[in-house]
Amino acid sequence: MKIAYILFHEITLLDFFGFYDPIKNIRSLGFREDLAWDTCAMSPSIKDSFGLEIMVDKVKPHLTGYDMIFVPGGYGTRPLQHDAEFIGWLKTAQDVPYKVSVCTGSLLLGAAGFLHGKAATINFKEYDALRPYCQEVLTSRIVDDGNTITAGAVTSSLDLGLYVCEKLVGKEKTELIRQGMDYHAGEYELVQRNI
Amino acid sequence: MKIAYILFHEITLLDFFGFYDPIKNIRSLGFREDLAWDTCAMSPSIKDSFGLEIMVDKVKPHLTGYDMIFVPGGYGTRPLQHDAEFIGWLKTAQDVPYKVSVCTGSLLLGAAGFLHGKAATINFKEYDALRPYCQEVLTSRIVDDGNTITAGAVTSSLDLGLYVCEKLVGKEKTELIRQGMDYHAGEYELVQRNI
Repeated sequence: MKIAYILFHEITLLDFFGFYDPIKNIRSLGFREDLAWDTCAMSPSIKDSFGLEIMVDKVKPHLTGYDMIFVPGGYGTRPLQHDAEFIGWLKTAQDVPYKVSVCTGSLLLGAAGFLHGKAATINFKEYDALRPYCQEVLTSRIVDDGNTITAGAVTSSLDLGLYVCEKLVGKEKTELIRQGMDYHAGEYELVQRNI
Repeated sequence: MKIAYILFHEITLLDFFGFYDPIKNIRSLGFREDLAWDTCAMSPSIKDSFGLEIMVDKVKPHLTGYDMIFVPGGYGTRPLQHDAEFIGWLKTAQDVPYKVSVCTGSLLLGAAGFLHGKAATINFKEYDALRPYCQEVLTSRIVDDGNTITAGAVTSSLDLGLYVCEKLVGKEKTELIRQGMDYHAGEYELVQRNI
């Protein structure tokens, strides 16, 4: 199970790290030794809107070999959805089994054509922006349509991370991960289709 | 109001970014133009336990000029609490008005002598490790003893970030930040002393 974390300039970093933390705990707790990941971007490093810089493992790798792509949100997604080079790169993930996004990351999954005929969600302020890319926009916090999994605004990344943990290691081990994080989710709506 | 984010190798990145996100929204939403920050460390970049690398703004700056230091947790805190050079550097924050930590970051505040005579908290698995450094270890999620503010395990960083937002911009603006993050905290215990 190898994940490509898709990073870009003007990312919202909590979209990424809210997901990254529970997932990396699968490794920290020894639940799956085969779990690995790369941070991937169009450049050797990326910066958020305030200049915080993260180094990237792989520059524009072909994404076919990964089992999951994860796309966070942020202001950067608005221009990137119309950036032919970036979207062309993202499309190399066409055959990747799990396609996952938080917040406006779903605009990028959409622009790559991955939401065609699917239900999906996005940050609650951006429902209209997502409509052209998918069959149906839902207001649920997490929407899983056949392992294309989209989530809502920033902190839904934590719920999404734990949801994907359940898929990878099951409910009992995920509960141990949640306890270690001392995370207490509010109730939220999850929609699952074609699973 | 200038914050020094104290980073180090083997950091738990969600400890940092769970706090960083609500705080940076004070700027994103235009609530305080005077709010600024630097990431600070003993080296030009730091890596978490899985090699994820973050570039640092200032290497070992004297911390006197900052208004707040923020110290996250992670495996790196265990050796660092006994590292004379690191603790010597952290002690330059002696006169900084706000001293804030998440998780095992409180071990570093403690080793620098900042918890002497104070109540404090830490990750729920590490209460015993904190006892030598403070007057009283509390099991509350957030403990604010005279603007020395410690919080519990990883996701308490989000609650702590919003708590500090309240101090900086008040309840109403903090509620707007929370809404934007779509964050729904579980109920938790906050202890305030000497405020």
